[in-house]
Amino acid sequence: MAIDETVPAPSREGRRGRDARRTQRLQSRSASIPFITRKVPTTEILSEEGLVLIESNAERLLEEIGCEFRDYPRALALFKEAGCDITGTRVRFPRGLARKLVATAPRQFTQAARNPERSVPIGGDSLVFAPVYGSPFVHDLDHGRRYGTIEDFRNFVKLAYASPFMHHSGGTVCEPVDLPVNKRHLDMVYAHMRLSDKPFMGSVTHPERAKDTVAMCRILFGADFLESNTVCTSLINANSPLVWDSAMLGSAEAYAAANQAVIITPFILSGAMSPVSVAGTLTQALAEILAGVAFVQLVRPGAPVIFGTFVSTLSMQSGAPTFGTPEAALAIYGAGQLARRLGLPFRTGGSLCASKIPDAQAAYESAQTLLPTLFAGTNFVLHAAGWMEGGLASSYEKFVMDLDQLGMMHVLARGIDLSENAQAFEAFHEVAPGGHFLGCAHTQANFESAFFRSQIADNNSVEQWEAEGRLDAPQRANKIWKKMLAEYEAPPLDPAIDEALQDFIARKKASMPDTTH
Amino acid sequence: MAIDETVPAPSREGRRGRDARRTQRLQSRSASIPFITRKVPTTEILSEEGLVLIESNAERLLEEIGCEFRDYPRALALFKEAGCDITGTRVRFPRGLARKLVATAPRQFTQAARNPERSVPIGGDSLVFAPVYGSPFVHDLDHGRRYGTIEDFRNFVKLAYASPFMHHSGGTVCEPVDLPVNKRHLDMVYAHMRLSDKPFMGSVTHPERAKDTVAMCRILFGADFLESNTVCTSLINANSPLVWDSAMLGSAEAYAAANQAVIITPFILSGAMSPVSVAGTLTQALAEILAGVAFVQLVRPGAPVIFGTFVSTLSMQSGAPTFGTPEAALAIYGAGQLARRLGLPFRTGGSLCASKIPDAQAAYESAQTLLPTLFAGTNFVLHAAGWMEGGLASSYEKFVMDLDQLGMMHVLARGIDLSENAQAFEAFHEVAPGGHFLGCAHTQANFESAFFRSQIADNNSVEQWEAEGRLDAPQRANKIWKKMLAEYEAPPLDPAIDEALQDFIARKKASMPDTTH
Repeated sequence: MAIDETVPAPSREGRRGRDARRTQRLQSRSASIPFITRKVPTTEILSEEGLVLIESNAERLLEEIGCEFRDYPRALALFKEAGCDITGTRVRFPRGLARKLVATAPRQFTQAARNPERSVPIGGDSLVFAPVYGSPFVHDLDHGRRYGTIEDFRNFVKLAYASPFMHHSGGTVCEPVDLPVNKRHLDMVYAHMRLSDKPFMGSVTHPERAKDTVAMCRILFGADFLESNTVCTSLINANSPLVWDSAMLGSAEAYAAANQAVIITPFILSGAMSPVSVAGTLTQALAEILAGVAFVQLVRPGAPVIFGTFVSTLSMQSGAPTFGTPEAALAIYGAGQLARRLGLPFRTGGSLCASKIPDAQAAYESAQTLLPTLFAGTNFVLHAAGWMEGGLASSYEKFVMDLDQLGMMHVLARGIDLSENAQAFEAFHEVAPGGHFLGCAHTQANFESAFFRSQIADNNSVEQWEAEGRLDAPQRANKIWKKMLAEYEAPPLDPAIDEALQDFIARKKASMPDTTH
Repeated sequence: MAIDETVPAPSREGRRGRDARRTQRLQSRSASIPFITRKVPTTEILSEEGLVLIESNAERLLEEIGCEFRDYPRALALFKEAGCDITGTRVRFPRGLARKLVATAPRQFTQAARNPERSVPIGGDSLVFAPVYGSPFVHDLDHGRRYGTIEDFRNFVKLAYASPFMHHSGGTVCEPVDLPVNKRHLDMVYAHMRLSDKPFMGSVTHPERAKDTVAMCRILFGADFLESNTVCTSLINANSPLVWDSAMLGSAEAYAAANQAVIITPFILSGAMSPVSVAGTLTQALAEILAGVAFVQLVRPGAPVIFGTFVSTLSMQSGAPTFGTPEAALAIYGAGQLARRLGLPFRTGGSLCASKIPDAQAAYESAQTLLPTLFAGTNFVLHAAGWMEGGLASSYEKFVMDLDQLGMMHVLARGIDLSENAQAFEAFHEVAPGGHFLGCAHTQANFESAFFRSQIADNNSVEQWEAEGRLDAPQRANKIWKKMLAEYEAPPLDPAIDEALQDFIARKKASMPDTTH
């Protein structure tokens, strides 16, 4: 699983940083897998006819109904200039225009990490896993469910850093509710920069906070480096149905103007925020994405952007969101096809579930989301680990249980090895019919690397399992995350850069009073 | 999900039985789904080149090493006659011969059930779920793990009957250890015949017991009906690597001679019973299947047969079998391709796991087996529900948790509905941007059937979940299976047939002393 791409190195870090990094790299090389290169085919669930139908309906939606771009006059001006029909804050697209505007977006881009070995290509056959995002609560077996804090936030950043199967540090791995709303983004972005050397996401709760993220990226990577490199990928959600608001548009503009990537994602609970059908939901999502990406491309043609979808179904009994459902899986597969036809990198899926605890429900639902995510040809997977309770809680135990599943996806995505060694013909000559392969030369030569080793699964006899305390999967996971945190060592960072970052944060915090919004 | 095939009705049942059946059918029609017609594409994980390589290696294996056919001279005579090279009990196949012998097997057949509405086509795009098979132990939350009894056996038959998502009654749903080994098959087959009207499997532990199964089928369906119809599908396992033994060959012959179906299945723990690689394991499995199916076709050309695989990986640390692994998933996909190229119905997968309890490990592993099973184009899925502890225990709670997953596979397999109603364009005209779809006419017209309703998942708020006792998924499942058993009603059976079956069993039991083998 080598890096398929040449990734430019950041320019500002000094020799000391590079040397230290090299040492770190050598130490962790065997465990470090920067991203997946998918070698298995995608699942094409919609026929050409079906795809054309949904694309045509999305165009019709943009033409007849259009999208709202609220409290953001600049968007209206840009769309008017581009040839859209503007009525109030409603933007209607003549058929084909949105698709044309989207065409300047790159098919693939690289998000550089401060450790160049951890830079990730986003698009094509690459697959990048990022942690859970946005949960106000955290959950662990010892203390149950509680509001997240900056300590929890740092813990999840450390766990993502420590795992060979998590490629990305993510963004709001939990909401640090103990910090003031208007300042917490500084501590969050700093945690990603300082405690990890994997790529990360920026703040989107206010355009100013997006600009702070960009400013901190300039300190970390160098201002010149940012002009021609993407170092930050951030999450821009639509207010479905068919509304883009000023916080999201302003943040998207701040990032796009600085050549930083955004994930344009309708976050849809189907049945409430879209029609109660997969086809209707895909139609609406495609329309919202076309409008959102068109805006980004009008801000800066060529700015990196990801076609994002997040589809949950609604329980028609209780109105609660549901996860791991077959309808959500179908939406995942279908959206992947629409993204590929549009020529954009694709984000969807993850390890989603509605369960309040890391039980069998959580696991069934997560696996029923993650496997479709892989075969949908997804390029960027938010919520790949730790998501629980419909996204309300980041779970420590589920985080490491999901990591184990992500490890398996690495093997699955490689497909079947057909090398001479894997064909194993000599083993058949060595082991007679009725014999046993365990001791044969081929097995001895391959057993170390032959099969993925789960950290979570207990495969022992029931007697041994009982003797070891009858632990269930979350109880084993509880021990693992504690060990990972205990063994965590921060990656080195040039002290001058660290000081500059801390100075920026201190000045920014001092410049305004704390607020709760 | 209508029946795609016209299925002949059994001939022997009287008018009273038919009338009663019609009443039953009308009562349960809404819940009854006889089988899945897969409308989603298969995952083609191996390229044409890879498939040809594995097929060529399998041919070479049959030519150079061959298969053992032990303690069964009739097989050696048949193979000699067919042109094989026989040395002792070793049968070597000149290149291409096994494939030629296999060609008389049907691409698809129908297994008739005594309720014709529950007959199942096996092959093509159809997908049939059958319960866990062969576990000596059972497990539930109330009593933990214990040896299975005939009461447990009957309970699992009832649960399979009661579920709209389980198409088949299966075979040894658990081992009824409280009955003598040489007689328990009579009670098992009778339980399937009396307590269910879904299709079922027969005994394979001794050729005489296979013949008893066929004799009981003749009583139930009528001897004439059996001559031109398959009413029983039974499991024939290879002794991997590359050995077929007399119990399996004798049972296979008994069924094939009576035109009844067998599933020719290498049961492989990769690394012990096959080389420690997916490619090597698929090569061996294909060779074993070619040899086994060739034998069946020599017994009776045209006898229905299923290409079966069961691949578990071995923990290279402990030697324990592991499930839900990426290597097993790759083997599932690859075997499906090999079966399709051979033109045979395909059996693999299920809801497999190694966990000792119905926890997150059980669920992750089961989902990571079941979803590949669907997309591998599998036609017959043994162990679709209830499998736990590597097949050592049939779990009551896991049975109903898995049923829920099988329900979801029904929806997933249908693909995306592109009807005018599903396109939902009128909903967009009804609900303005920023509005809410819950109350709109399209949602109101569709909400009852729009999304699959899980029986297991709790999607409520954490507050409500806590108020309801903080139950985990197995605890909810515990209530469900008890309710299913409490509400169970046996399907009607012509009393004359029932009496004849009971008479056959009584005479058979009286004819020999109890034995423990």
